[in-house]
Amino acid sequence: MPTFKITLAYDGTDFVGWQRQASGASIQGLLEDALRELDGRSVAAVGAGRTDAGVHALGQVASFSLERQTEPSTVVRALNARLPPEVRVLSAAEMPHDFHARFDTRSKTYHYRIWNGDVVSPFERRYVWHVPGALDVDAMRDAARRIEGAHDFAAFQAAGSDASTTERNVLASAIERSGSLLTYRIAGDGFLRHMVRAIAGSLVEVGRGRHPSSWIDEVIASRDRATAGRTAPAHGLFLMSIEYKRSLADEA
Amino acid sequence: MPTFKITLAYDGTDFVGWQRQASGASIQGLLEDALRELDGRSVAAVGAGRTDAGVHALGQVASFSLERQTEPSTVVRALNARLPPEVRVLSAAEMPHDFHARFDTRSKTYHYRIWNGDVVSPFERRYVWHVPGALDVDAMRDAARRIEGAHDFAAFQAAGSDASTTERNVLASAIERSGSLLTYRIAGDGFLRHMVRAIAGSLVEVGRGRHPSSWIDEVIASRDRATAGRTAPAHGLFLMSIEYKRSLADEA
Repeated sequence: MPTFKITLAYDGTDFVGWQRQASGASIQGLLEDALRELDGRSVAAVGAGRTDAGVHALGQVASFSLERQTEPSTVVRALNARLPPEVRVLSAAEMPHDFHARFDTRSKTYHYRIWNGDVVSPFERRYVWHVPGALDVDAMRDAARRIEGAHDFAAFQAAGSDASTTERNVLASAIERSGSLLTYRIAGDGFLRHMVRAIAGSLVEVGRGRHPSSWIDEVIASRDRATAGRTAPAHGLFLMSIEYKRSLADEA
Repeated sequence: MPTFKITLAYDGTDFVGWQRQASGASIQGLLEDALRELDGRSVAAVGAGRTDAGVHALGQVASFSLERQTEPSTVVRALNARLPPEVRVLSAAEMPHDFHARFDTRSKTYHYRIWNGDVVSPFERRYVWHVPGALDVDAMRDAARRIEGAHDFAAFQAAGSDASTTERNVLASAIERSGSLLTYRIAGDGFLRHMVRAIAGSLVEVGRGRHPSSWIDEVIASRDRATAGRTAPAHGLFLMSIEYKRSLADEA
């Protein structure tokens, strides 16, 4: 029963998200279907981050155990032969039997991409949130820095969520500009549902001058979803990487 | 009757190419439909390069004349409001009345993109030709250099073409590698039908070691399509830019 860790990239445009749903194509569903063909029995796959419908990934991680002894290179090749081109397995590594892609996570890194120009390139249209008009990027940078650290992020949690605790530790929160593209990078030990998108929406409010950057502190303190900005659209969000304890680092 | 030069980008994946066809969506057809709505009458648009089905553009140029006095910024905004997001007008400039996007061209630059890795990123799959396995990139570079200069390129012309002359002057022909991505860049005063794709297919033959780089000289000398490599797929090809005589450079 070898246990594997795989790293996946996917274009989330046409999927209902990571998690298997009653209807619609999910990444987990496609992966488990491919694993069943590979291993000849039903295989459960665990994803490190449960990305929502439309969210993309460059470095999602999943874990599963197979009945058959299988080489990691065979896992990569066999899964890619069965998955649609929108989902690719980038690497695979055999791991200790108790490895769990979600519970063993040390931190996750997301990018949220904003196109701040009049015209969105046809090649970017599925992968950015289009925000035309002037943005005060320095104010956004200052607001982003205020997200860093251990805070109660209840104000940035999707309504109706039932996370047992809303405290999270954000390790990095920064904005980079490259031409019309703003990339908001956030790393943390965990994220509430819609948290990155609600923060991105709030940073844009600051960029538009509707609030000073210090408003972010007030939003955090409020613990009230209604005070923060609107949830930015899913298609600008990328799950970039999952960091594990050093002993569980990818050996592939 | 102001005459305009516009620069366009498009994702060619779902189009029958630049030129209006009996059936299927063409860039020219969409543009002329949008121009008719804008100008209130039928408007003919000329494209600098007649890209084939599936070919992309980052810097296509088109020209047309409108009945109504219209600001260039209005042309950009009005056309983008009517075109699908796969086609974007990047800029517009008013030009002398006799400006013609095709006849006044000095040179064109194309990129052909090759993914030389085992796994194609989901975000690149529509925009590269996947060529896995070892490639001798140094030999491909040498072969690419042999394309430069004034030659009779009949061996790289699509069968059944009826160009009046098959001599063209290639100003630059070079390969750059960035990780798994090889970009073949070619600029010339004109191109025969399928010429860039037939050259790209031939360079890959050299990269795979099927022929030495000096074979390219023999292919050119043969003037025979059958001696060259196969035509590389359309979806790796990008029309990057159109260069005009200095007096007709984009003022936008």
